[in-house]
Amino acid sequence: MLILMNVNATDEQMQEVCKRIEELGYKPHPMPGATRCAIGITGNKGPVEADALDQLPGVAELIPVSKPYKLVSRDMKPENTVVSFAGSDATVGGAELALMAGPCSVESRDQLFRAAETVANSGARFLRGGAFKPRTSPYAFQGMCEQGLQLLAAAREAFGLLVVTEAVDYESLALVDQYADMIQIGARNMQNFALLKLAGRASKPVLLKRGIAATLDELLMAAEYIMSEGNYNVVLCERGIRTFADHTRNTLDVGIVPSVKRLTHLPIIIDPSHAAGKRDSVAPLARAGVAVGADGLIVEVHCDPDRALSDGAQSLYPLQFAAMVSELRGIAGIVGRTMHKSQRQLAPARSVVQS
Amino acid sequence: MLILMNVNATDEQMQEVCKRIEELGYKPHPMPGATRCAIGITGNKGPVEADALDQLPGVAELIPVSKPYKLVSRDMKPENTVVSFAGSDATVGGAELALMAGPCSVESRDQLFRAAETVANSGARFLRGGAFKPRTSPYAFQGMCEQGLQLLAAAREAFGLLVVTEAVDYESLALVDQYADMIQIGARNMQNFALLKLAGRASKPVLLKRGIAATLDELLMAAEYIMSEGNYNVVLCERGIRTFADHTRNTLDVGIVPSVKRLTHLPIIIDPSHAAGKRDSVAPLARAGVAVGADGLIVEVHCDPDRALSDGAQSLYPLQFAAMVSELRGIAGIVGRTMHKSQRQLAPARSVVQS
Amino acid sequence: MLILMNVNATDEQMQEVCKRIEELGYKPHPMPGATRCAIGITGNKGPVEADALDQLPGVAELIPVSKPYKLVSRDMKPENTVVSFAGSDATVGGAELALMAGPCSVESRDQLFRAAETVANSGARFLRGGAFKPRTSPYAFQGMCEQGLQLLAAAREAFGLLVVTEAVDYESLALVDQYADMIQIGARNMQNFALLKLAGRASKPVLLKRGIAATLDELLMAAEYIMSEGNYNVVLCERGIRTFADHTRNTLDVGIVPSVKRLTHLPIIIDPSHAAGKRDSVAPLARAGVAVGADGLIVEVHCDPDRALSDGAQSLYPLQFAAMVSELRGIAGIVGRTMHKSQRQLAPARSVVQS
Amino acid sequence: MLILMNVNATDEQMQEVCKRIEELGYKPHPMPGATRCAIGITGNKGPVEADALDQLPGVAELIPVSKPYKLVSRDMKPENTVVSFAGSDATVGGAELALMAGPCSVESRDQLFRAAETVANSGARFLRGGAFKPRTSPYAFQGMCEQGLQLLAAAREAFGLLVVTEAVDYESLALVDQYADMIQIGARNMQNFALLKLAGRASKPVLLKRGIAATLDELLMAAEYIMSEGNYNVVLCERGIRTFADHTRNTLDVGIVPSVKRLTHLPIIIDPSHAAGKRDSVAPLARAGVAVGADGLIVEVHCDPDRALSDGAQSLYPLQFAAMVSELRGIAGIVGRTMHKSQRQLAPARSVVQS
Repeated sequence: MLILMNVNATDEQMQEVCKRIEELGYKPHPMPGATRCAIGITGNKGPVEADALDQLPGVAELIPVSKPYKLVSRDMKPENTVVSFAGSDATVGGAELALMAGPCSVESRDQLFRAAETVANSGARFLRGGAFKPRTSPYAFQGMCEQGLQLLAAAREAFGLLVVTEAVDYESLALVDQYADMIQIGARNMQNFALLKLAGRASKPVLLKRGIAATLDELLMAAEYIMSEGNYNVVLCERGIRTFADHTRNTLDVGIVPSVKRLTHLPIIIDPSHAAGKRDSVAPLARAGVAVGADGLIVEVHCDPDRALSDGAQSLYPLQFAAMVSELRGIAGIVGRTMHKSQRQLAPARSVVQS
Repeated sequence: MLILMNVNATDEQMQEVCKRIEELGYKPHPMPGATRCAIGITGNKGPVEADALDQLPGVAELIPVSKPYKLVSRDMKPENTVVSFAGSDATVGGAELALMAGPCSVESRDQLFRAAETVANSGARFLRGGAFKPRTSPYAFQGMCEQGLQLLAAAREAFGLLVVTEAVDYESLALVDQYADMIQIGARNMQNFALLKLAGRASKPVLLKRGIAATLDELLMAAEYIMSEGNYNVVLCERGIRTFADHTRNTLDVGIVPSVKRLTHLPIIIDPSHAAGKRDSVAPLARAGVAVGADGLIVEVHCDPDRALSDGAQSLYPLQFAAMVSELRGIAGIVGRTMHKSQRQLAPARSVVQS
Repeated sequence: MLILMNVNATDEQMQEVCKRIEELGYKPHPMPGATRCAIGITGNKGPVEADALDQLPGVAELIPVSKPYKLVSRDMKPENTVVSFAGSDATVGGAELALMAGPCSVESRDQLFRAAETVANSGARFLRGGAFKPRTSPYAFQGMCEQGLQLLAAAREAFGLLVVTEAVDYESLALVDQYADMIQIGARNMQNFALLKLAGRASKPVLLKRGIAATLDELLMAAEYIMSEGNYNVVLCERGIRTFADHTRNTLDVGIVPSVKRLTHLPIIIDPSHAAGKRDSVAPLARAGVAVGADGLIVEVHCDPDRALSDGAQSLYPLQFAAMVSELRGIAGIVGRTMHKSQRQLAPARSVVQS
Repeated sequence: MLILMNVNATDEQMQEVCKRIEELGYKPHPMPGATRCAIGITGNKGPVEADALDQLPGVAELIPVSKPYKLVSRDMKPENTVVSFAGSDATVGGAELALMAGPCSVESRDQLFRAAETVANSGARFLRGGAFKPRTSPYAFQGMCEQGLQLLAAAREAFGLLVVTEAVDYESLALVDQYADMIQIGARNMQNFALLKLAGRASKPVLLKRGIAATLDELLMAAEYIMSEGNYNVVLCERGIRTFADHTRNTLDVGIVPSVKRLTHLPIIIDPSHAAGKRDSVAPLARAGVAVGADGLIVEVHCDPDRALSDGAQSLYPLQFAAMVSELRGIAGIVGRTMHKSQRQLAPARSVVQS
């Protein structure tokens, strides 16, 4: 059930409606819009008692929601969600494309800082880098854990980047929420509902990656889990699905972007690196992602990919990344988006890379 | 690296080798076999120092393992693993097929006890029933939690069944480990590595369901996660994979059974209910599962499936279950397996079902 | 539109109805059943004029058909179709399981005759063997063509087997129709509608293999193409679908069998060889196929598989085939089917194999 | 085996080498390159006798080819193939993007001409439109056949467009080769090898669509079938693959484009219409296709899509098509491609559309 308030409904009226919803034993989700406010109702098993609500002052309309998701739905909130970050003018879902880049894993201060400098110089606003790595093998490198988060936080200060990094369980989520600017939920955990609920109670925006075999509905329901706990800052991420095709590591499903835009107000970004699985397909897939209408990209960049502890084969060299961003700027303009331009000098960056 | 001990190596020699492995900074996994003992080594990043080990008394051979998994491998342990349970002569992986049955979710004492009685009377040794339900929607019934576990434990006492039920996070795993006889890790959590590690430290055997898009290697690596923490009692479960085919809810991949038997010593059972997604395909798929060589079945049975809170459409009626088990007995005999025969009178069971 | 005739309707009445359907510009498909006759109507773009038909003598009922297929539907013909063959008491779809076996390709008289003798001795009624091979590479062995058909016909005479072999185009279909007892349409041609129509005008029954990515509806529509041209003797074949799973060549979708039985009266058999892609998974998949309720099997057998020109790795040795058939007999009995027992002495057969 | 000729080898030397290859019983495929000529050898079962060839005048090098395809390989011909058409300066595979558009099916002169005019005005060089339709149902509209081809040929004259249309069997292929400028082989026939061989003997270039479950290797082998018969003008087409994802009709696999460019010299275009299956995803997918580096697009456009006899839901309205082309021009420029600009007045075109 969704309650649409009148255009000129007051805050007091809205709070009154929320209070009434709680008295009925449900959970209200007020979502302010550009022209008027909507209130989602969750927690009901059967139909909500309409009589108790539609006569309250300020209520314009009661809309039954037949889709399995509510809070993520465009019916609930017609305007795009623009996720913002404390202490930064970067956003995800606004006019400016969100560019996230960095190494697969945080391996050392030197490795991270070199990558951070190079991606900042090319215009990235977000630094990616895994401190907790969900690896298929228990014997593979599992990440630097809290030490990795500390290095990410230090790189944020040094290069003015926002930090996005993955959490895999209760402990790591609490730490990521503390150190980072955005909490990544990986593809393997997209239906780890316990983790989704924790992310829904965290203070930072969440980057939710699509599972390799998740339908669009399942992706939206996973976002609904997070939102139903009160965290409305969710960004979706397409990173390739598992199919029979063997020429890339996964099949990048660019067609999900227009479908997502139709059904939900949440932003969606593209991860061309995990889809490609090899370096020379990353830039073409990134271009496709911007052209299809995604709100941003998350890309693996490493200054010495041949020695990377994970995903080296799909990490771009710094100069490849810079060249790719330059192409993306052109395409962004065609589809009505802007891209951030670094204020930083390029010369020192190059010197760092060569050192 | 795998160490094969001599046929007549003593326990002291084996302990000496394990001690030496620990001194090198690795983790030893002694696995006794029918004729001789093997010791797996994990925790090494590069090659293990062979010189330090192959001259120790009792050591027959050092075998480098090139596959990404070690402890699950048949190279490590050629004999089938037979999982046993305290206070019961039921096993999984032995000559007797393991028959697990019960409702999708524990809904009430009456519902659970009626289902438990009916499956016990038909020859099931294990009672299944979810107390913690990983549901796609945050608004769907999430299970009775600890209260559900208490009902399962009570049904165990009443009907002499072993209890298998799902854990989804830290808290539920600790509870399931306490109340149940076998900890189920669901398909959505097959690569929730944090949960796998917890299961690896639990005291009860683990039933590990294949993810809907997991390759055989990924399934075996998930089992390796559990075993690498010290819990060697892992049972695999095929429950259907996600494909384009839309005539069943998932596509039951019976072909994984002979492939599993080739690569690993761990048992594998079949879940025909989640694969079928509809009642009248369950029995045919169960027959196929026994015929292909699986070590058991886990089947949803409900005395009033039309009122089930979850998965009603795929739950068998009691009489359907009994008829199915009767066919399975015949097929089991053809493929060299036995099935448990209930000591219980059928007449009272039927009266319960009809009441 | 489907017309059900009265139980005691006369042949003249049925012919009168067919004549009237033709006058309306449509095509009648009379299908005699056990108790009464049904007449399918095809060729209509919109709804059929019911008034013109439902008052004719002998007409019991007019049933609008909403499914995209008509002639294949169980609504049209509730009884199972049992395909029979001139000059033989073998059938497909009756109580006796249809066992088809032989080499992938016909390579020589000696190779074919040795295989034919061995499969006949084990109880096969049908000899398979490709004379026209649809190969992925234009440079691979493409079959012995008409010469291969002549050898198949000779083997039929020598061993009392029925011959099933693939046609790939206009010319080969005419030849197969002339030499063989059953025309195979391969998985790659399941939606080669031109070929399906030709098969629909042929005189022999058709074995229609499911495409590697065909849904059940598409498979049934392909059968409908054949039947709509007048050939009602169609046997479906599940041979594995393409999925992400890499432990078998294709994923055998045994779950299609009960779904097929629900929707259509046509028989369905299982091809475990192409699904498995490797010898030691063939027998387990064949057992699963019989247990799930298939009407038969088509299996690759070769007396010297390591020298086969195609599919050697998945061809059974003669003794493996004999052992498998022995297991299948047991399972067939459990699911209410019989299997043919060869009258031939086993001793000479073995001598042939060993020579 | 591949023979590289010297840069300054003469035509006579090349012919001498071809003659020698034929004497050995193989088939030579001379392929002139920008700087020097290569000659492919096919028809050999085992290794080619190198001694007989590498001493011939003009021969620079003999290169053994290990991949299953030869003629399609970039090893064979490093420069991109640019397909050209008699009587037109349009190409596929050159700097200019190939834009193919028109209705799914030819339905009438009026319908075709209105669509042709509108797509020509927007800059399309090729008119698409099916005269022979491979339809899933035998009862669906199967196309206007030769009459449809005559209308396509008339539209070519009227609007200066090249015609591309599908052939489905022996008869239709002969007709398409006669009337059209490019022969389309549909996805369902990608492994109809008999048809591929016929296309290989046709006089017109071939547009080969990827099967819904075809791997890249299988697509290249299908092209090899055509080329091995002597027709080297093959254009590949990605039109979406079948996956579990249900938000589009098929999953457009844009990642195949860079992989194709790596392995083969053949051009590849994108069909966003069949991938999307619904109108409002077509333009985003088309933009992604150009951005990822495809050599062109084939798009369904219909002036009255709601009354189309097939694929109406995915056909663009004329104004949508014009708007889409305008965006594509921008993206084409970014990735180093040009697009044809119509000389035709837009005003009359609009009047036709509105009439």
